[in-house]
Amino acid sequence: MSKPLAIGIAGLGTVGAGVANLLRANADIIAARAGRPIVVTAVSSRDRHKDRGVPLAGLRWYEDAVTLASDPGVDVVVEAIGGSEGTARALVEAALAAGKPVVTANKALLAMHGRSLAALAEERCVPLAFEAAVAGGIPAIKALREGFAGNSIRRVAGILNGTCNYILTEMRLRGLQFAEVLQEAQKLGYAEADPSFDIDGVDAAHKLAILAAIAFNRPVEFSELHVEGIREISAVDIEMAEALGYRIKLLGLAEKGEAGVSARVHPCMVPLTSPIARVEGVFNAVVAEGDAVGRVMLEGRGAGGGPTASAVVADLIDIARDRHTPVWGAEERMLNHAPAIPMQRHRGAYYLRLMVWDRPGVIADVTAVLRDASISLESMLQRGRAPGEAVPVVLTTHDCDESAMQGAIARLAALDSVLEKPALIRIETL
Amino acid sequence: MSKPLAIGIAGLGTVGAGVANLLRANADIIAARAGRPIVVTAVSSRDRHKDRGVPLAGLRWYEDAVTLASDPGVDVVVEAIGGSEGTARALVEAALAAGKPVVTANKALLAMHGRSLAALAEERCVPLAFEAAVAGGIPAIKALREGFAGNSIRRVAGILNGTCNYILTEMRLRGLQFAEVLQEAQKLGYAEADPSFDIDGVDAAHKLAILAAIAFNRPVEFSELHVEGIREISAVDIEMAEALGYRIKLLGLAEKGEAGVSARVHPCMVPLTSPIARVEGVFNAVVAEGDAVGRVMLEGRGAGGGPTASAVVADLIDIARDRHTPVWGAEERMLNHAPAIPMQRHRGAYYLRLMVWDRPGVIADVTAVLRDASISLESMLQRGRAPGEAVPVVLTTHDCDESAMQGAIARLAALDSVLEKPALIRIETL
Repeated sequence: MSKPLAIGIAGLGTVGAGVANLLRANADIIAARAGRPIVVTAVSSRDRHKDRGVPLAGLRWYEDAVTLASDPGVDVVVEAIGGSEGTARALVEAALAAGKPVVTANKALLAMHGRSLAALAEERCVPLAFEAAVAGGIPAIKALREGFAGNSIRRVAGILNGTCNYILTEMRLRGLQFAEVLQEAQKLGYAEADPSFDIDGVDAAHKLAILAAIAFNRPVEFSELHVEGIREISAVDIEMAEALGYRIKLLGLAEKGEAGVSARVHPCMVPLTSPIARVEGVFNAVVAEGDAVGRVMLEGRGAGGGPTASAVVADLIDIARDRHTPVWGAEERMLNHAPAIPMQRHRGAYYLRLMVWDRPGVIADVTAVLRDASISLESMLQRGRAPGEAVPVVLTTHDCDESAMQGAIARLAALDSVLEKPALIRIETL
Repeated sequence: MSKPLAIGIAGLGTVGAGVANLLRANADIIAARAGRPIVVTAVSSRDRHKDRGVPLAGLRWYEDAVTLASDPGVDVVVEAIGGSEGTARALVEAALAAGKPVVTANKALLAMHGRSLAALAEERCVPLAFEAAVAGGIPAIKALREGFAGNSIRRVAGILNGTCNYILTEMRLRGLQFAEVLQEAQKLGYAEADPSFDIDGVDAAHKLAILAAIAFNRPVEFSELHVEGIREISAVDIEMAEALGYRIKLLGLAEKGEAGVSARVHPCMVPLTSPIARVEGVFNAVVAEGDAVGRVMLEGRGAGGGPTASAVVADLIDIARDRHTPVWGAEERMLNHAPAIPMQRHRGAYYLRLMVWDRPGVIADVTAVLRDASISLESMLQRGRAPGEAVPVVLTTHDCDESAMQGAIARLAALDSVLEKPALIRIETL
């Protein structure tokens, strides 16, 4: 058996400690599959004496994570610090510059600085691996970048944030409002004290930027993405969705067509018959559509110490075996530069909910606005009757232009009889 | 860009022609991802003049497939002939012996001769790749062997035969009997003229043998598998399953525990809430359970020219990039030799359907047999009332021993009041 592969882990939170523990627990299996032992030789964390369930005896310990990169007894750096700037970025850059492979679970870093890091990795001919950055233990990066490599990939989509999927599932099952479930999720530790990163769609967008770059061999600037979260999803919309044969999911969707590449994160209504509609709670799913393979869905736990460690260790085994794949699936000079399609040029079907005064003429006003915007209705439903009070009116449209819809929404919001900001949810089939 | 990788394809049926066409259609994308062009330089087929939609101009053509292995202008051999013996086996052995990588979709060959072929490939340090052999375009081999390589895998299971899943789905949706749907499937080309390979579970068992060997790093002899097909599934069982909250699927299931490895293919009742219950029609799915990653499911098309070609080309790209993985996930000397657990030692829950005379005392006779075999009932249901005529009695059990159940079945079949061979379907949760 060859010489062991020596790992330095920076950060001993859930991810770093999970990796250290998995490497120890499954040492024999991992050595057999990697062709040599994989052993942790050095770690870095802020507090040496905090008990993380990781025995530190015999390991070199660094207060400054960046020094891990220059330890000659470290072959590969695992970056488990997090954040797109600061120490995490400095460490990854230092390790790549020193010719050391890097494994990271850091989606924010990849989404914000993936382009320059990929260039650095390619220049130094050194692996930069990040299976754990997207969809936890689901081998989504490997499936897309290697498994579907023979395909022209038309679309990649997914439920990429477990916190949002948990909240939407609980709202539906228990008929609760967003704020109630969020508070509960925070108590249970499923949502952060400051939940905005998850619930505003930013985390899902980081992951989608990575998936899109790999699917299309085209780095995606984070600023090219359209991002909406789930704060405005109401219990009534979830109920109406079910009645219409849909389920509401926060999806990331990236598509490549003749005109270019689009990438967007927003709540969607997906048909109940679609496999992704059944992916509930904290589970994640990634759907890819290739010209040869058709549609494939991968489903599993998207977060947590175990799944994340599983993905990091898979990357380490690839490195131990010298299985190398360029960051975006192809070398820099072979990447494509298809233009980004802005959200204003999206076309699709929409669900629209208006709270209106229940009085004669309201529906005529509403439908006139849509007609003037050349938006064709598929269905209209006024729920309940309460003359002189507020009632919801729900409309679904045939495919129309996002720009036309946004114009119509502004005009609807300005009508006297419309009492709240209209709720808009895009309908997607996948 | 490096020198092109030259491919020789043996067999120009659906698989071989599909590979040739995909390599041409997506040549640019594939070259970018492979780091060099992948081009077909030679083919072998029985009839040079049969039009297969593959332009043969400029390609060397061989009547004898085995000679492809010795063509110095062929770097990699794609075996698309099929069958576990004869030309396919001779070609694969010749190519490996000549130090040429082989890519095949041939599950029968791998299941029957994988052990000796893996040894030959390892001895010559040459890749033997077979992603297309299991679950078509779903990257199940890659996910298990690389993506989950950090895990101790407890179980791998799946819907591995699209023909059976199609038949079971149609029986359920349309309330038809097995023979009716089979005949229709044959007319539509979803089932072969001689369907026994599919419907008796042999094809699924070949695939399961491969998955189990990879999941557990333990070659599985085909004779170690317990194999049952779907011929005896009746419309009434499908109806009863739904009423009890289950769906009937032909599953392959391989498990590894303290005592050893078990692998079996048979019809199962799975809870309707289980994701695999929703995988319908010709779709395949593979579920893996690892100690770190938890449960992951992969779902997609399990057959057809496109999905199969997608998997073969993915293997070719791995070879072009020198990404190498041992056949069973670890080198021969690192494989484990856990004992095989025979079906007689299985423990599980069962569904049992008896056709009995509707007369007093029958249920007492039946339950006495089960009591004497120490089998504990979970539910009992007699459907309809027809005094003096035949009616179905359906029982479900708590976990019990397969050997006890087989003994009880024999005694039940011998009862005067039991009119047909009892129907037995195992209940699985996954």
